[in-house]
Amino acid sequence: MTAEATMIELDAILFDTFGTLVDWRTSLIADLSRFGGERGIAVDWAAFVDAWRGAYAPSMDRVRRRDEPWKTLDALHRDSFDDLARKFGFNASLDENDRGWCVDRWHRLRPWPDTVAGLARLRVRWIVGTLSNGNVRLLADLARSAALPMDVLFSAELFRHYKRDSEVYLGAIELLATTPDRVMLCAAHNDDLAAAKSHGMRTAFVARPTEYGPNQSTDLTAGDRVDIAVRDLRELADRMDA
Amino acid sequence: MTAEATMIELDAILFDTFGTLVDWRTSLIADLSRFGGERGIAVDWAAFVDAWRGAYAPSMDRVRRRDEPWKTLDALHRDSFDDLARKFGFNASLDENDRGWCVDRWHRLRPWPDTVAGLARLRVRWIVGTLSNGNVRLLADLARSAALPMDVLFSAELFRHYKRDSEVYLGAIELLATTPDRVMLCAAHNDDLAAAKSHGMRTAFVARPTEYGPNQSTDLTAGDRVDIAVRDLRELADRMDA
Repeated sequence: MTAEATMIELDAILFDTFGTLVDWRTSLIADLSRFGGERGIAVDWAAFVDAWRGAYAPSMDRVRRRDEPWKTLDALHRDSFDDLARKFGFNASLDENDRGWCVDRWHRLRPWPDTVAGLARLRVRWIVGTLSNGNVRLLADLARSAALPMDVLFSAELFRHYKRDSEVYLGAIELLATTPDRVMLCAAHNDDLAAAKSHGMRTAFVARPTEYGPNQSTDLTAGDRVDIAVRDLRELADRMDA
Repeated sequence: MTAEATMIELDAILFDTFGTLVDWRTSLIADLSRFGGERGIAVDWAAFVDAWRGAYAPSMDRVRRRDEPWKTLDALHRDSFDDLARKFGFNASLDENDRGWCVDRWHRLRPWPDTVAGLARLRVRWIVGTLSNGNVRLLADLARSAALPMDVLFSAELFRHYKRDSEVYLGAIELLATTPDRVMLCAAHNDDLAAAKSHGMRTAFVARPTEYGPNQSTDLTAGDRVDIAVRDLRELADRMDA
């Protein structure tokens, strides 16, 4: 048994989802480029997708500060899609079905190559779940379409708070009927892990150095307070002796 | 395609769990009889289990009426276990570990013979989930130990209301981001199905005529307002053309 496995008595390993388990950027660029090609909409889809993801944190922050009432991530994605379709000049080319289809692409993202195999191995021994800002239906569709082995879907929607609000981390621990030190968060984002650590959770950093594209400059390496840092989920399973 | 399948455009099929998916009575009698044998505790374990399940509805009703604050099903099971251990005269033979082990038997119940195969077939086409009074951790452990194919675990705990309160049915529909007529409840209990129907959900009755033992006299046949009545979940999959 490895040092990590003996050190940690866990009930569950929870995973941030967008970026950590699924490659939203490559998936969305591929789907929207195909869509644009079929419709004759010529825009820089990589720039569009980056702008769409860029709207994510500010839109959640408005909800977190209670400047806006609770909205699901699907609703935030729809709002920012409509804004950006206007900015990128193709809003008039779309009908309601098109908009729904585009926003639904977030429900059909592809996993990283190691995700499914890594989760399957870890799930043999521990409860495996999401800890995500995605709403429940989004996560359910995503887990089905990407064939993610999952026992539970913990969503910001259950708590009506978005990460990094403490309610999300503490809410999941309460639903697991356990203590923070028996739950590990695995994420590709150091600020998410720092929040989990501040509540007493265990933390695993997984490197996703191309999540934001070839020029990514953040979250390339683990912060100094994570318990385990790995290249991918196969290595996490190896290190956890799963 | 069958008449049922063309009639119903569904997003999800949700399942009552205790009695509908798992055979709590046989499982608990087997586990507790073995436990009693090892400890030299001679009681009528079938009578004990029936009394334990008998305490379930009144204990939930106290929470539903708000005579008691919110308690999880695990906590209600623990309270009634302690009461009944006194009544059955073996309370003094138990330590804290024993009590925890006994209450944890609800997390390890065995599925009916058709459950896993039926769920797996239905899950190919629809989102499959629980709609149960069990708390989230109980359902997660149960789904793992019984190998229930599940996408989502909807629990009374998420809504802090027990079935048959409307909050449970409507809460699950909201989290599925859909309308009641696109969600089917499958249950072995007509009152649960009647509540679902009153909110506009689709309903499937599955017969579990020995859930309460060989002398069961209730819920032997479907009420007249269910959409589909089946003998088991294989027949449900057949009839739904899954």
